[in-house]
Amino acid sequence: MDRKKFRQKYNLFLVEGNKTITELFNSNFKIKEIFSTDPQKLDRQDIPVTHISENELKKISFLQNPKDSVAVCYLREEKKLEDSDLQLVLDGIQDPGNMGTIIRLADWFGIKQIICSKDTVDFYNPKVIMSSMGSFTRVNIVYEDLTEYLSHTKNVNIGTDMEGENIYSFARPEKMNLILGNEGNGMRPETEKLLEKSVTIPRFGESQSTESLNVSMAASIILGQLFRVRE
Amino acid sequence: MDRKKFRQKYNLFLVEGNKTITELFNSNFKIKEIFSTDPQKLDRQDIPVTHISENELKKISFLQNPKDSVAVCYLREEKKLEDSDLQLVLDGIQDPGNMGTIIRLADWFGIKQIICSKDTVDFYNPKVIMSSMGSFTRVNIVYEDLTEYLSHTKNVNIGTDMEGENIYSFARPEKMNLILGNEGNGMRPETEKLLEKSVTIPRFGESQSTESLNVSMAASIILGQLFRVRE
Repeated sequence: MDRKKFRQKYNLFLVEGNKTITELFNSNFKIKEIFSTDPQKLDRQDIPVTHISENELKKISFLQNPKDSVAVCYLREEKKLEDSDLQLVLDGIQDPGNMGTIIRLADWFGIKQIICSKDTVDFYNPKVIMSSMGSFTRVNIVYEDLTEYLSHTKNVNIGTDMEGENIYSFARPEKMNLILGNEGNGMRPETEKLLEKSVTIPRFGESQSTESLNVSMAASIILGQLFRVRE
Repeated sequence: MDRKKFRQKYNLFLVEGNKTITELFNSNFKIKEIFSTDPQKLDRQDIPVTHISENELKKISFLQNPKDSVAVCYLREEKKLEDSDLQLVLDGIQDPGNMGTIIRLADWFGIKQIICSKDTVDFYNPKVIMSSMGSFTRVNIVYEDLTEYLSHTKNVNIGTDMEGENIYSFARPEKMNLILGNEGNGMRPETEKLLEKSVTIPRFGESQSTESLNVSMAASIILGQLFRVRE
């Protein structure tokens, strides 16, 4: 189940650790079954829980140091919600850790939906699920043809680059998409063409490296500022 | 060399990849020697460069997919600078990725020095060096007895917690330390006692999990805001 095709074939994915599994109970994700080294801790009668040994858990888990339990869950039917006032749009994000961090940020700021290009990393990837820490249960994540979506949305499409408007003086539109590009290559040219504006985080240090901030750090700083404007 | 005691015994650490190695050339770190699959690219006459095969590189490297070169460097003599107006203080940060991200943030915002508790992860750890991406050459990082340091600094000691002042309305003091605690346990009680204030990032979403933002995301948002005040 570490590969997308297996997840899609069986319509299942894995969630590890009681902490995140407990967050599933309060979500619209459905759990097929749980394997646990300590089933009493979970205390659920409505879901089959199998008691397993730590060695068995190690074989199922993707973690180097597996936690207490692994839940086998059904994929959620993908359903795009109407655009909300502030949405994230991901154009080819590849790193599972970045994806997980961005999902957590969205959750923190109450962002309801993330629109991803088809080639963005699958959010059911076990590393994304782990690094999102349960936030994936509260944010709707959909995979769309971005050119199609960005051409038709009524939200203002805002990108990030080195020559955009200073994020500290940027006036946030009522309804906007914040578009984040691929770690190495940024946004695709087709996406860039559909931007109405870009924002930039001013640099205070002397570093000249373009990689000084990665996409999830940049997203943290930009969202931090966009939500200030809201106050 | 993946262990602190070996680094200390031989007084050496590793830097991987031409991109970061090139940043060393412009820093006060000294390189002992370089092993490279393509020495011509580096074009340095003053440092011994040994041509090695990709297989040999794999054996030296800590990376799953090793890059072009590995530089063996001398540890820098640790020397605390005078307090600057905005410093970071790390109380027991353990995750090398978080440490690397925090060093990159400091570099971006021109923060000159990071003061670490003795039990904070060693910044010469190969994973820290890799995730800091050359920023470690521009930020002075020292390991101190924090209780001692925080008791005597003239900077205002500001922590982060869930009940602090709203970061969006916080008036930044002229001279301050921003103190970031351990990933799981936060700051030590001895450190907390030496705080003059705390700041909080308001939560806009519905998540109630205390782990919704990790320390490097929180640091990104807080520094982003502190530097706005500066403008």
